Amino acid sequence: MRLVRVSLYEFRTIYFKHLQSVTNMSDNESCLFCKIVRGEVPASVIFEDKFTMAFMDIFPISKGHCLLIPKQHYENMLYVDTKVAKHLAVRLAELTRKVHSEFEPDGIINVIANGVGAGQEVPHLHIHVIPRNEGDRFGFLFPDDYREEMAPRDELDSVAKAIRAQTDLLGSK
Amino acid sequence: MRLVRVSLYEFRTIYFKHLQSVTNMSDNESCLFCKIVRGEVPASVIFEDKFTMAFMDIFPISKGHCLLIPKQHYENMLYVDTKVAKHLAVRLAELTRKVHSEFEPDGIINVIANGVGAGQEVPHLHIHVIPRNEGDRFGFLFPDDYREEMAPRDELDSVAKAIRAQTDLLGSK
Repeated sequence: MRLVRVSLYEFRTIYFKHLQSVTNMSDNESCLFCKIVRGEVPASVIFEDKFTMAFMDIFPISKGHCLLIPKQHYENMLYVDTKVAKHLAVRLAELTRKVHSEFEPDGIINVIANGVGAGQEVPHLHIHVIPRNEGDRFGFLFPDDYREEMAPRDELDSVAKAIRAQTDLLGSK
Repeated sequence: MRLVRVSLYEFRTIYFKHLQSVTNMSDNESCLFCKIVRGEVPASVIFEDKFTMAFMDIFPISKGHCLLIPKQHYENMLYVDTKVAKHLAVRLAELTRKVHSEFEPDGIINVIANGVGAGQEVPHLHIHVIPRNEGDRFGFLFPDDYREEMAPRDELDSVAKAIRAQTDLLGSK
């Protein structure tokens, strides 16, 4: 028997792909967003198509704060399929523009939290569309020394090289 | 002569599309990221293809913080072309996975700031890929009363309806 050493990330990725191949769309029984897709939990839906759905965040940071999700259950960007990612991008542009047209805010941010350590609470890929306005008391918290000086070029080059050398396990080229 | 009333947003959109139709890729003379695309300003490039480029942020919030941009100059998601948006999505998934494989952080966030009022500093669409780790002193600042109670369903429904009714001027369906 041949043994192969894999990282936890590799194992999860392979295992998750296997799970997807044997299950259907919105297949995650306990997932809140899968329940919304199946119509088991109410949502204020903006639009939906074969692959995606957009609905209001029930705890809006600002008026118009909504979410775009794939109907199929992918935990986050680490697992999403290429075809679905493309659909999401087109619909994200559309949703951002519609929110902009309706509210004409000072700006809009799009955010994806990938993983609990990034603040992801519902383990189903979702993209936030959040209107921003002056004095909205929302924003980013930066480290104290942020932007004190530019990172050394040789360090940036070496990190770029290391990232480039990594294999993208799902082969999303 | 027939006069048509348009909002500032509509006017900018139409004017910008006109500008794009008469200019080339990376056409914005003074834009920092267009200069990077043209090789006039140094960058630690991770990868590039016909439509996109990924390079390190020179003021990294955390080790591995990088940016993905379209090579063509689009101010932000309000103006991006459907075809380019699709390319960006595929490359964003790839970049996020590669950063994850290299650093194995607690999580990764993807952020797009659309407009100065959303914190956008370089007026060329860019997607941040930021590794997050416990104690990284980076995060979101929320309003004091955030999540004190769920937004009323009828209000969410009415906002969803209003957003749905908006025309997406660039027709990104």
